[in-house]
Amino acid sequence: MLKLSRLLLHSSRDPLSRKSLFGEATGDFKLLRGITTQTVMSSAMQSSARDGNSAVKIFAPYSIYKGKAALSADPRLPTFSKLGSGDYRVERRGVIMLTFWPAIGERKYDWDKRQVFALSATEVGSLISLGSKDSCEFFHDPSMLSSNAGQVRKSLSIKAHVDGSGYFISLSVVNNILKTNDRFVVPVTTAEFAVMRTAFTFALPHIMGWDQFTNRLPHGANQSSPKAVHELQSSEWDR
Amino acid sequence: MLKLSRLLLHSSRDPLSRKSLFGEATGDFKLLRGITTQTVMSSAMQSSARDGNSAVKIFAPYSIYKGKAALSADPRLPTFSKLGSGDYRVERRGVIMLTFWPAIGERKYDWDKRQVFALSATEVGSLISLGSKDSCEFFHDPSMLSSNAGQVRKSLSIKAHVDGSGYFISLSVVNNILKTNDRFVVPVTTAEFAVMRTAFTFALPHIMGWDQFTNRLPHGANQSSPKAVHELQSSEWDR
Amino acid sequence: MLKLSRLLLHSSRDPLSRKSLFGEATGDFKLLRGITTQTVMSSAMQSSARDGNSAVKIFAPYSIYKGKAALSADPRLPTFSKLGSGDYRVERRGVIMLTFWPAIGERKYDWDKRQVFALSATEVGSLISLGSKDSCEFFHDPSMLSSNAGQVRKSLSIKAHVDGSGYFISLSVVNNILKTNDRFVVPVTTAEFAVMRTAFTFALPHIMGWDQFTNRLPHGANQSSPKAVHELQSSEWDR
Amino acid sequence: MLKLSRLLLHSSRDPLSRKSLFGEATGDFKLLRGITTQTVMSSAMQSSARDGNSAVKIFAPYSIYKGKAALSADPRLPTFSKLGSGDYRVERRGVIMLTFWPAIGERKYDWDKRQVFALSATEVGSLISLGSKDSCEFFHDPSMLSSNAGQVRKSLSIKAHVDGSGYFISLSVVNNILKTNDRFVVPVTTAEFAVMRTAFTFALPHIMGWDQFTNRLPHGANQSSPKAVHELQSSEWDR
Repeated sequence: MLKLSRLLLHSSRDPLSRKSLFGEATGDFKLLRGITTQTVMSSAMQSSARDGNSAVKIFAPYSIYKGKAALSADPRLPTFSKLGSGDYRVERRGVIMLTFWPAIGERKYDWDKRQVFALSATEVGSLISLGSKDSCEFFHDPSMLSSNAGQVRKSLSIKAHVDGSGYFISLSVVNNILKTNDRFVVPVTTAEFAVMRTAFTFALPHIMGWDQFTNRLPHGANQSSPKAVHELQSSEWDR
Repeated sequence: MLKLSRLLLHSSRDPLSRKSLFGEATGDFKLLRGITTQTVMSSAMQSSARDGNSAVKIFAPYSIYKGKAALSADPRLPTFSKLGSGDYRVERRGVIMLTFWPAIGERKYDWDKRQVFALSATEVGSLISLGSKDSCEFFHDPSMLSSNAGQVRKSLSIKAHVDGSGYFISLSVVNNILKTNDRFVVPVTTAEFAVMRTAFTFALPHIMGWDQFTNRLPHGANQSSPKAVHELQSSEWDR
Repeated sequence: MLKLSRLLLHSSRDPLSRKSLFGEATGDFKLLRGITTQTVMSSAMQSSARDGNSAVKIFAPYSIYKGKAALSADPRLPTFSKLGSGDYRVERRGVIMLTFWPAIGERKYDWDKRQVFALSATEVGSLISLGSKDSCEFFHDPSMLSSNAGQVRKSLSIKAHVDGSGYFISLSVVNNILKTNDRFVVPVTTAEFAVMRTAFTFALPHIMGWDQFTNRLPHGANQSSPKAVHELQSSEWDR
Repeated sequence: MLKLSRLLLHSSRDPLSRKSLFGEATGDFKLLRGITTQTVMSSAMQSSARDGNSAVKIFAPYSIYKGKAALSADPRLPTFSKLGSGDYRVERRGVIMLTFWPAIGERKYDWDKRQVFALSATEVGSLISLGSKDSCEFFHDPSMLSSNAGQVRKSLSIKAHVDGSGYFISLSVVNNILKTNDRFVVPVTTAEFAVMRTAFTFALPHIMGWDQFTNRLPHGANQSSPKAVHELQSSEWDR
């Protein structure tokens, strides 16, 4: 725990120095949150609140420590790019990042040997809909479209215990470039999996960017063409 | 429905110069959002933050690309009209918009040939409560109450795979005015459907306008007539 | 629909004139929202934003129109009272208000003959956990602790269709003071009930006041006594 | 745990003058909330809004009064510590606090004899995933790592009624230091448990600190290196 917090401090101290910040191979253990709550303010307020402060990060992983390894999950929000029109679209979709790191003694874990696996929205959908006897497996090739395609292969497997009392969550990473072969297995109880299912269900609309679609104030207070609106309602919604 | 899609297309054509931005293969759908987060500001702040900027739109569709067609879903918030009293009521209810567009080659899709189907709150309720063996079908006549009633007929069908491993989602559009007959079929896996179910469940209160009813700050700090309040509680809630 | 909107306009025009504003017997069809989103502002901003504007109300009921009657549901937030310390506690708990009003012709409904039933948090819990074959019934006496106790008796019944295809939701109001006896029955499909279940599940923490407990910004950044905190964690959470 | 409750009691005794405010029969529990909504303000605004006002607390417990005892539940948010970098990490994880206090007559309850049990995220996961016939039990030693280890033993048990109509929730506290042995049993109906399940499911991401990861405004509008982003997407999400 001490180690973890030290590392977290380290990684947050130098948050943007790594080259492939978001790549799975790097597996940086931080949750980038581009803009803080304070950006709800107008631009004038923002500048005073965030002078020289490009982004505030928040660390709130859900961690499970077991005999052979630890497993941690935390959401990474999507990024948006501003279009010429002033509108926004999702630039990079969000994920739920799973991080595994091995035990190296009693209650000691080696964060430097961690490996990560970024669950897409659809993979999250698969996980949260698993029945108590179900299993699933996902395969990632972090360098799929580059010249290194096929050199690193990751597979994440979630396998129900035969008695329905939980799951084994395993990550296997075969890296032919570094000649490494890592495997982590973390047994997860039904209660821990319920936390993951609930928290992932909560996080899913956020990593998809759908939490943007929240009514903040009555808007579109459109007094014009009530007729057209009525027709529209009739044809589409008033059945 | 035709009317709706035309209006939406029109408004999205303006701000985004659609084709050049997303390209046909990408086919990203535009989600109109009447007013941005910045409207949380007071009116003075709003004017500085949004000068001449009538509405910011955010595009975050959930898209599924399959062999014959692609399917995309995204929520459309309700609009509110301001009453003379300063209060608001829902003017046009929100929907979850489904967009289908055909494949025209390997990994190529033709966005110009898209068709949409706007799921009402109740249709969303039907979809999210589907069991793994269930099916449902919805029929829309976009010009129901106009002189063109019956000229355009749309039906959306969601049919479970016999082995419970997912669904076929199909849209059929028969347009007797344009003499067209379009049909799209997109197979959706259990995981993809779980994403839709979770995201639609999240979105449902938002398209209904119920997310407006969030306690922002303790309010109604009513010190008067504690007696009356107590009676009320006794009769209604203290059983 | 026209009638409804006219009535809504009417009731919102004169929002606080009724004596027993929140009583079920009165059944005022408006959702009081004491303070708008704009109250997130500091007090200085509030005053500029809300001069002479005591509260903005929002109307977003979920309505179901059937042959004999219509049924509408909408949440009512709790009110909070400010304590001398500056803290707040729930003064009057929130409810989900059900309103029934009878059909008086084809697609015509008489809003003036409406009756309401205020679902408490626990009654909402009962409704959202109903299986497809289950039924439940609630009894209210709006004047329970007054001298009129027993004079008005309301019962709300939710009864599953035998084939599991939906529910009958019925309200019976026997008023011995006014010598009236009203009964409304609204058949609700599985899809409509799914909307109610989802929207009520969303609304439940809000009517309980639990949405107040949202982390807005990292808070309690307590650097003092990290030792005590560590002990606390060890004893309570680090198992 | 003793330590925790003492600290909580201490802080709540100050602002509220507990007894006179709520009375014994009411037994309302106080929920500490470190910082209010007003901290969404920029720092300049905060100081004006919160001069000399270290924290606003909100009390919104869900309480169940039964023949032998009462049970109350309310969430406690995590605390965050600010790192040197300006980032934040969870300092003390949140819990859902259960409070039990005994009946001492008809509709009279003795708040001074209360005992608390702080449910961790994983224990909440266990509770919300209980089937209608399931049971579970948790054990806490509030002084686990201190010299008093083993002196106070708490166990919380949730046991389904044999007919599936609800649960018995019991707390037993054996305190060898004070030579006390308390036991509370509260029967909870299916409807009440549904409220707990729904409210706890809502609260879980909040006590984990995951509600921090909400998109407030489009952020990370990163126009640079679209190529890199595309590769990343291809390798990770575009399968």
